[in-house]
Amino acid sequence: MNLHQLMRDLRENNGSKIVFLVADGLGGLPLEVGGKTELETARTANLDGMVREAVCGLSIPVLPGIAPGSGPGHLGLFGYDPLEYQIGRGILEALGINFQVGPRDVAVRGNFCTVNDKGLITDRRAGRPATERCIEMCKKMQAIKIPGIEIFVEPVREHRFVVVFRGDNLGDAVNDTDPQALNVAPLHAVGEDANSQNTAKAVNTFIAEASKLLKNDAPTNMVTLRGFARYPKIATMQDIYGLRCACIAVYPMYKGLARLVGMDILDAGATLNDQIETLKKVWKDYDFFFMHYKYTDSTGEDGNFAGKVEKIEQLDAEIPRIRALNPDVFIVTGDHSTPSKMLSHSWHPVPTVLWAKTVRPDGVVEFGESFCLRGGLGQFEAKYLMSLAMAHAGRLAKYGA
Amino acid sequence: MNLHQLMRDLRENNGSKIVFLVADGLGGLPLEVGGKTELETARTANLDGMVREAVCGLSIPVLPGIAPGSGPGHLGLFGYDPLEYQIGRGILEALGINFQVGPRDVAVRGNFCTVNDKGLITDRRAGRPATERCIEMCKKMQAIKIPGIEIFVEPVREHRFVVVFRGDNLGDAVNDTDPQALNVAPLHAVGEDANSQNTAKAVNTFIAEASKLLKNDAPTNMVTLRGFARYPKIATMQDIYGLRCACIAVYPMYKGLARLVGMDILDAGATLNDQIETLKKVWKDYDFFFMHYKYTDSTGEDGNFAGKVEKIEQLDAEIPRIRALNPDVFIVTGDHSTPSKMLSHSWHPVPTVLWAKTVRPDGVVEFGESFCLRGGLGQFEAKYLMSLAMAHAGRLAKYGA
Repeated sequence: MNLHQLMRDLRENNGSKIVFLVADGLGGLPLEVGGKTELETARTANLDGMVREAVCGLSIPVLPGIAPGSGPGHLGLFGYDPLEYQIGRGILEALGINFQVGPRDVAVRGNFCTVNDKGLITDRRAGRPATERCIEMCKKMQAIKIPGIEIFVEPVREHRFVVVFRGDNLGDAVNDTDPQALNVAPLHAVGEDANSQNTAKAVNTFIAEASKLLKNDAPTNMVTLRGFARYPKIATMQDIYGLRCACIAVYPMYKGLARLVGMDILDAGATLNDQIETLKKVWKDYDFFFMHYKYTDSTGEDGNFAGKVEKIEQLDAEIPRIRALNPDVFIVTGDHSTPSKMLSHSWHPVPTVLWAKTVRPDGVVEFGESFCLRGGLGQFEAKYLMSLAMAHAGRLAKYGA
Repeated sequence: MNLHQLMRDLRENNGSKIVFLVADGLGGLPLEVGGKTELETARTANLDGMVREAVCGLSIPVLPGIAPGSGPGHLGLFGYDPLEYQIGRGILEALGINFQVGPRDVAVRGNFCTVNDKGLITDRRAGRPATERCIEMCKKMQAIKIPGIEIFVEPVREHRFVVVFRGDNLGDAVNDTDPQALNVAPLHAVGEDANSQNTAKAVNTFIAEASKLLKNDAPTNMVTLRGFARYPKIATMQDIYGLRCACIAVYPMYKGLARLVGMDILDAGATLNDQIETLKKVWKDYDFFFMHYKYTDSTGEDGNFAGKVEKIEQLDAEIPRIRALNPDVFIVTGDHSTPSKMLSHSWHPVPTVLWAKTVRPDGVVEFGESFCLRGGLGQFEAKYLMSLAMAHAGRLAKYGA
């Protein structure tokens, strides 16, 4: 039996409320041996108070040693095995610019590149053009028409853009046209099956047209496409858990991921304060609230230890406003670690606290990696956090007689 | 490779003895933040002494967040993945009244209900009749005969009874006839496959005959059946582990579960004292002893914190008598938690102690949930307890060269 079917079989609706506050990249590392992590350094009186009445642990996003991107990191937290449910690069790029991908779409990441008069690639990133030029070039390509297929060309930044092919019977088993090498021509697209051959045909037409349109626009005089991906078929959280789910996130990528699993995407404003105001407003209308906080990740990626500490303290300051709503289950965790020491996502298990009336206390008195290591949840795979949340919310019946 | 095949491949027989003492629903919760659980509150000098020479941990019965019934809870302890081996409601009901179900049986839970003169259900539980009436009505139905199929109708209590259909080629893919609603007629039974159609035909005949027999017995003038279940095909513990297994339990349900996995069911008397006397008597005749103690669960389900503490202390008092037999491996655990705070089974991991001469000490000095959290077994899935027992009993060869 799989976990989702188990949830469907056991779930009950008792009107309880679950809040998932995801501080992106929450986990960290000390800068020096014997030092403290960002979270351990931060003064977090509110989180510490919560921890004393809660159960803590460390969440393993995918498997030991695997650092996830935002997609698998969040899917795991929502209870989807990130090794089973995979989201292609094209779809993630589209989500990241708030493009509303749908079930008839194949999305792909595009790069502007430079080709010489023989059509061979001389710069795979077209000299990293300004984003304004990227926007301008994308506008040119929006003129490309292919019968029976809608085409969307949307800028991301610098040399990066997204193309979405919308139509019936479009597969995504199509090779990258980016040869990942210089002094060779972009590759011809080939589809592995009938539906993917439909896509490949459209792709080759698109690239030929783009090549003509951009002919005199060196260094952005050609494009390559990679990471063809169909919109994944994923059962919604409503279907699996019977929860009315709301996403209260600021950044497009996380809204997009939440939309993939069927959450309603609410207008969350631009700040944590706005997000909490939204939470209050819709408290009665939903059962599950996904709140996303970006800045613990972005400061970590910038290698800004002090900045990450400060962002954690700003998050801590808002905790009482969420607790004041009396959620039945309140979880604070991250989708992965982003140690500022590493300037990147990492595989280190993520500090997690679960507050509910039914927790078994574990003696942890402070929120931090070393403390969570001694917590009652132990080290657990992120995909089990939702079943724990459902149990503590009183929303799961007994399994078997 | 699956776990059972691994056991078959590696097992050896060295004449060692393993005792599994299962205190049903052993794990608990404090009543208040900062308080102690039932087990932590209980004075357990004997268990504490054992813990100091043993290794402790917390057993996860099924998966994080999943509270098991007695069936999956015990199957896990016996080394059967409780998500793979499922026991239907009908079989469990039959086990619970000590009915010896066999491989040609389909068992089902029956309810007396009340129907009006149009045959529509007006009370799904027939006003919860006295158990005496249930017995009397079941006797009436025992007169029903169906060619080629043996039928057993056995009372449980109040409106509940069990029907067992015994014959060749009987399937259990048959819908419940209980519509779970009022003012509708009981449903017709339909089989999903050829064998289940055989069952459904017998079921519909049985219900038609029962309806005639009970016609003038309102409010118990009709029956519904739900949870059709065949006797599961399960490899025995003898087959998997090469152990001669004895069940020394008082309550029918646990004897029935032990019989399912091939244990010999011994006359265990009515008290823990009787059970230990039985254990002594048969010590030479078996390798594995499953001793079941019910009262930690029943007091928990009653919400009786002090009562559960007392029952734990009574169990503790008998520990030296078991240790005096010098088992090679002595495990005390539970099939799940039953916190008296929740009055029900729960998903919380179960305190477990494993005593053997080969344990690696873990510094735990007291038996309790918080202590076990720091134990050397960590948090482990219950299904691995048997392989640990086999290893510590010296009964498993090295895997691979």
